[in-house]
Amino acid sequence: MKSLSVDQIKKQNFSAGPAILPATVIKEAAAAVADWNGSGLSILEVSHRGKEFVSVLEEAEALTRELLGLTDDYAVLFLTGGASTQFYMTCMNILDKDQTACYVNTGTWSTKAIKEAKLFGNIEEIASSKDRNFSYIPKGYDIPDHAHFLHLTSNNTISGTEFHQLPDTAVPIVCDMSSNIFSRPIDINRYSLIYAGAQKNLGPAGTTLVIIKKDILGKVERAIPTMLNYQTHIDKGSSFNTPPVYPIFVSMLTMRWVKAQGGVAAMEQKNIAKANLLYKEIDRNPLFKGAAAAEDRSRMNVTFVLEKPELEAAFLEAATNAGCVGIKGHRSVGGFRASIYNAMPIEGVQVLVDIMQEFARQNA
Amino acid sequence: MKSLSVDQIKKQNFSAGPAILPATVIKEAAAAVADWNGSGLSILEVSHRGKEFVSVLEEAEALTRELLGLTDDYAVLFLTGGASTQFYMTCMNILDKDQTACYVNTGTWSTKAIKEAKLFGNIEEIASSKDRNFSYIPKGYDIPDHAHFLHLTSNNTISGTEFHQLPDTAVPIVCDMSSNIFSRPIDINRYSLIYAGAQKNLGPAGTTLVIIKKDILGKVERAIPTMLNYQTHIDKGSSFNTPPVYPIFVSMLTMRWVKAQGGVAAMEQKNIAKANLLYKEIDRNPLFKGAAAAEDRSRMNVTFVLEKPELEAAFLEAATNAGCVGIKGHRSVGGFRASIYNAMPIEGVQVLVDIMQEFARQNA
Repeated sequence: MKSLSVDQIKKQNFSAGPAILPATVIKEAAAAVADWNGSGLSILEVSHRGKEFVSVLEEAEALTRELLGLTDDYAVLFLTGGASTQFYMTCMNILDKDQTACYVNTGTWSTKAIKEAKLFGNIEEIASSKDRNFSYIPKGYDIPDHAHFLHLTSNNTISGTEFHQLPDTAVPIVCDMSSNIFSRPIDINRYSLIYAGAQKNLGPAGTTLVIIKKDILGKVERAIPTMLNYQTHIDKGSSFNTPPVYPIFVSMLTMRWVKAQGGVAAMEQKNIAKANLLYKEIDRNPLFKGAAAAEDRSRMNVTFVLEKPELEAAFLEAATNAGCVGIKGHRSVGGFRASIYNAMPIEGVQVLVDIMQEFARQNA
Repeated sequence: MKSLSVDQIKKQNFSAGPAILPATVIKEAAAAVADWNGSGLSILEVSHRGKEFVSVLEEAEALTRELLGLTDDYAVLFLTGGASTQFYMTCMNILDKDQTACYVNTGTWSTKAIKEAKLFGNIEEIASSKDRNFSYIPKGYDIPDHAHFLHLTSNNTISGTEFHQLPDTAVPIVCDMSSNIFSRPIDINRYSLIYAGAQKNLGPAGTTLVIIKKDILGKVERAIPTMLNYQTHIDKGSSFNTPPVYPIFVSMLTMRWVKAQGGVAAMEQKNIAKANLLYKEIDRNPLFKGAAAAEDRSRMNVTFVLEKPELEAAFLEAATNAGCVGIKGHRSVGGFRASIYNAMPIEGVQVLVDIMQEFARQNA
């Protein structure tokens, strides 16, 4: 039997972000670039004020509302600049300079959020897992009643941890959900504001979903540039200026796909099954061990190392030869990271598990 | 002979932005979404840190430098948020609160730039064409020596005017070139900073090109959020956070196309020919008249009205039936606007001219 070259092997995309998108979404996304709906024009060259794209924006908002169960007191925005822009834009809009916000530091992204927030108000880091390289989610800390909001990073892409339960508090939550939005149901009533860069569970790079409880706005004293004021974008339906048309379009296609899969509750069941399959192998296989505390393991980003670090290069090669892409761990954790977002089918996870088993046989 | 339905007629895309892209660029852009370079992955799902996309970013920067003749003292960035973000980001980075910047107000976009700039320093509007609905470019005004910079909008998409000559001054220029960048050569030595939303002459919506003379940075006293500091993006090669991968990729393809066409000097000759063809018809045809002062007419956005406004609806219908898209004028000017950016071939302009002639015959 003739063996396949690496280029011919079907790729399993475990990249942390930009990340795998559903195959049907990619097909529709490519077709719309060539000729959108038989219009004779590419979606890349149509007006953002035309009724065709306006209906895309409306559908993207409606799907967000439906999938997450949003009530009318929340606004849905599609902005740009990623979560990194939200790190300061949140505080600029909702935290006055004499107010206090509490942050739980669960990794690189929380750390960056805290740094930017400090430009705008009193920031208290009330808990941190930095002492063990962010390998767990802190618990049992006090959340002061005077906190204007509590900021959480619901899933930590780099260390592979995830909040499976929210802290018990009445303080409203501002949450960076970049890497697990639409992967599980949420209780929207607990949140004042949610933001998420698209390029993990939502779409390609280039747009940022922001969900805001409208009544928290308009209360800070500082002057805010027009483009940085959430109210601007609420008033103009995410089209105050030219929005990132194509990233929003592909995100809308992905949300349609999530809905067709049965919504976020069905996604959660699939994500649990995928995560269980991979973590079970990590725990069973004597060559591997998980990098994150078992109870805080992320369903999205599975981090693991080899018991014998000298085998890492060989395992990376074996996985790469089998078509696995993007499994090298972040330099701050080392080892490996398999990102298994919504769009990753369980069959893709099985390919990785098979490689791990074969690798164990060869290195017994 | 069977007549074609409207959907079957080849479209001529005169949209103001997002706007026409070269047909070859659209073809390559669609192929890369389906399968990028035979990698088995869509460009929408690859890591922005991978060598393939890093080389796209590098080529985009190199092409910008080559096409515009940039020297090493300028940095080239691909950001997000459009020109509307640059309206405040420029001043936040380079204008201290006690410094003065001078603005020439040539339309809607200049007006917005002035509004945002006022949050950061002393802003003097030294000239304006508001008195005649921005239908001309002001001339003969004084530019005070104490100005830290002079802000211009080089082409005014809505009113259809364009600077064909820079003001005679030693004051460095900050320029919004969103709608005419890469359409003609520039003398880079006159500029401290140039910004341009991609969605006219550069690519699809979703990225913003910023060109900065590096030595103007680091001199203001205010604290700047990390993402709003140009230096952040210079230090990280436009990848401090996840950049808008696909909009940058398509912009790079478009710059390759501009280079293959002979660069910006060749583009200028083609743009002059296209503009002359259309303005000549506007001046010749008794039914039409140009909306902008003849000497300040834009080569990119040709604005015109009908001598008899009651014929406007019929002309719009005639043009639409012939496949012309996006020629309705902005509500603040009325009439029509044909945007004939780089990617519009002269044959497309000829289609519109033919319709105007036919319309004149029918309405003689």
